[in-house]
Amino acid sequence: MNRYSLAKRCFAEALATAWLVLMGVGTAVISGAVPWVGVNGVALAFGLSLLTAAYTFGSISGCHANPAVTIGFWVAKQLVSKDVLPYIGSQVLGGIWGSTILFLICMGKPEFTTANFGSNGVGIHSPGNYSWWACALAEFIVTCGFVLLILSVTSSPVFKRSAPIPIGLGLTLVHLILIPVTNASVNPVRSLATAIFTRGWALADLWIFIVFPVLGGVLAGMVARSLQKPDI
Amino acid sequence: MNRYSLAKRCFAEALATAWLVLMGVGTAVISGAVPWVGVNGVALAFGLSLLTAAYTFGSISGCHANPAVTIGFWVAKQLVSKDVLPYIGSQVLGGIWGSTILFLICMGKPEFTTANFGSNGVGIHSPGNYSWWACALAEFIVTCGFVLLILSVTSSPVFKRSAPIPIGLGLTLVHLILIPVTNASVNPVRSLATAIFTRGWALADLWIFIVFPVLGGVLAGMVARSLQKPDI
Amino acid sequence: MNRYSLAKRCFAEALATAWLVLMGVGTAVISGAVPWVGVNGVALAFGLSLLTAAYTFGSISGCHANPAVTIGFWVAKQLVSKDVLPYIGSQVLGGIWGSTILFLICMGKPEFTTANFGSNGVGIHSPGNYSWWACALAEFIVTCGFVLLILSVTSSPVFKRSAPIPIGLGLTLVHLILIPVTNASVNPVRSLATAIFTRGWALADLWIFIVFPVLGGVLAGMVARSLQKPDI
Amino acid sequence: MNRYSLAKRCFAEALATAWLVLMGVGTAVISGAVPWVGVNGVALAFGLSLLTAAYTFGSISGCHANPAVTIGFWVAKQLVSKDVLPYIGSQVLGGIWGSTILFLICMGKPEFTTANFGSNGVGIHSPGNYSWWACALAEFIVTCGFVLLILSVTSSPVFKRSAPIPIGLGLTLVHLILIPVTNASVNPVRSLATAIFTRGWALADLWIFIVFPVLGGVLAGMVARSLQKPDI
Repeated sequence: MNRYSLAKRCFAEALATAWLVLMGVGTAVISGAVPWVGVNGVALAFGLSLLTAAYTFGSISGCHANPAVTIGFWVAKQLVSKDVLPYIGSQVLGGIWGSTILFLICMGKPEFTTANFGSNGVGIHSPGNYSWWACALAEFIVTCGFVLLILSVTSSPVFKRSAPIPIGLGLTLVHLILIPVTNASVNPVRSLATAIFTRGWALADLWIFIVFPVLGGVLAGMVARSLQKPDI
Repeated sequence: MNRYSLAKRCFAEALATAWLVLMGVGTAVISGAVPWVGVNGVALAFGLSLLTAAYTFGSISGCHANPAVTIGFWVAKQLVSKDVLPYIGSQVLGGIWGSTILFLICMGKPEFTTANFGSNGVGIHSPGNYSWWACALAEFIVTCGFVLLILSVTSSPVFKRSAPIPIGLGLTLVHLILIPVTNASVNPVRSLATAIFTRGWALADLWIFIVFPVLGGVLAGMVARSLQKPDI
Repeated sequence: MNRYSLAKRCFAEALATAWLVLMGVGTAVISGAVPWVGVNGVALAFGLSLLTAAYTFGSISGCHANPAVTIGFWVAKQLVSKDVLPYIGSQVLGGIWGSTILFLICMGKPEFTTANFGSNGVGIHSPGNYSWWACALAEFIVTCGFVLLILSVTSSPVFKRSAPIPIGLGLTLVHLILIPVTNASVNPVRSLATAIFTRGWALADLWIFIVFPVLGGVLAGMVARSLQKPDI
Repeated sequence: MNRYSLAKRCFAEALATAWLVLMGVGTAVISGAVPWVGVNGVALAFGLSLLTAAYTFGSISGCHANPAVTIGFWVAKQLVSKDVLPYIGSQVLGGIWGSTILFLICMGKPEFTTANFGSNGVGIHSPGNYSWWACALAEFIVTCGFVLLILSVTSSPVFKRSAPIPIGLGLTLVHLILIPVTNASVNPVRSLATAIFTRGWALADLWIFIVFPVLGGVLAGMVARSLQKPDI
């Protein structure tokens, strides 16, 4: 059914993830503290980054741009096993491209430091000081709902054609609620791509943003398999 | 025509209502007071919660996620009588799941109290101090328009495929105008799910957010039946 | 082609205009001064009022909800002459219903006065103190573009099905630019419906918001007729 | 395949570009400094200007409204060579119409000066004081992604019908990240149309907003050609 080679699909995944990190994290770093932008503007930017990436690359690779989504597709048996690792590898590479380009642009502003580079954190590095277990619970549940949305809408004959709209706006919603909790991840690669620049606490907290989004993706894959089958 | 068992549809209604309460009320509680978020961000979150739920669960259960909507469908003769109570029961259960998960996440923030848990109120508990009859009138009229939108768009052959977009954005609109009046309900279960945590005045005002949204849904069902029939 | 009687279409026009005024002007009056709402929230509310009205009533009456639009359709020869006056009469009636319901809700707030009722004005009653001729020019040009959008999108076989989305978001755009100029009209009935409550200067300035939006609609109808015809 | 004469298509390009400049730059100049509007409101206005223009003129001329887009289409071999210069010429003319109408409206406000006319700048004229090379890099990369989105979505049989939505929202995204960097161009004509009124530094910096967006469009055209071909 898919008419693109694995190499081309992996290239598309890398570009999509680079775009998501560059534009989403980029708006947080560059515009997030500008008066009146705040959470609303950053949430909109993350959502529109994914919406536009899905319209650009979706018909090539599916535009997961997120290992939790790739694993959810795999658990739901909508992605073959041999594609999982190449997809995730491409996402990691693309995410690092995105944050590196963003880092270069930010170097052009005199007062820039990587202390404020949109990294995800818990406890004293949670914007609203949420304890680590609350952050973990929030990332787990919200990722599960977000991946379930993606799995449902991409496998629906009715909604498939407009899938990038709910998927993108879904990521906006995720950021509206999670920015004060964890600075909003639901995506291990997005967390990795910024943590390697912030270093220190961001690398120390990184495991939370790998484990719990992935667990959310696994649960979503399981729910999708049981829910979608018509009974009649 | 519906290919899903009642049990699976009720499970979908419960999950959809849980998602609506978790993400909509959650954004109000977690992010609503963060600078520059305010009514705009919360209204967007409620709308996108319903939009994403409708894309995820709409093709299974219709994604009412609201007893006023379910009753509107029933009055408009678009839902069989024997489904009404199971749907409403599932919505109540799901709404409580959603607010319970939100409560757990909020417990991870030291200064959290349930005094501020997004409950709906009138008079001195209306954000803008609107008297009870103004709140009741507003909830009645606005719910009527909102349910009429849902009934029209889901029964239109032209607009059905994109129905989650106007329905979700319609809920955003509802919150833009009603948050200063009643903190915006138009949904008895959303009010119940937060009132059981806030207690006191929220439980005392709860009847208003059951009676008037339901009356609005009934009127919408009656208007839909008379309006939609083509004359030729 | 239209399968609804003129009476039912006029009823739909009245309900659509009532909804537009209630929810659009209502958000301006009730929420416009709440911190962080401002022009963005009010512009979104006006756009979503029209978007939802168009999804609800569009397949019945076309959902003009605006005499400038009705006249544009007539000039573009997309509406028969005998429907023009009944449509406009229904819009006037509906607009007054909408502002009356809003007035009743606002009466429930102790400090409410009609001095702040979302009326349109020029000169010293322009929010940004724009002179009357600048207001007139802005209303003329912006209404022309807005009505041209409506005429193009509703007559396009490709875009017709999603017409309410650009039309609604187009009204949001109109408000983003025009609120500081005239408080944004582009609609004689929306101006009339609030002016009868504000009285005084609002009634004195009303002619501007009748003449220039209608002229814009006429020009749009003429451009649409010449532009849309394929040459080959 | 295109059923419109080159003259009519050029007229559509001019009107589309005029609308984009009038409404996008207009919101920045008129509303951008109104409390709570800021980057979010201006970014939304630019995006909705293009979205509405694409719905109005897209089926006639394609609604490029931007020389970087026109050149991207040409490099991707989706526009014949002889149309390139007429398209760009019409865009220049239209952009100047748009900024001239805006200038006239702004003249109606006593304290208006062209010092604040939404021009693009670098270094000390970058809103966030970004150095010229960071501005150039940002304009190059972001324009490349934006034009690639347009080329992908307009040539996709699945997404073509809703193309104005991702294209318009994509321009919103571009402004969310780039306003603090360069005041956001990605469009040589939009920069030219304001620079001729601001004069001085805006004309001196103009070459950056011609060269780098065009280079981004060229790269996007090349990527589109290699990426879109199915392998099987």
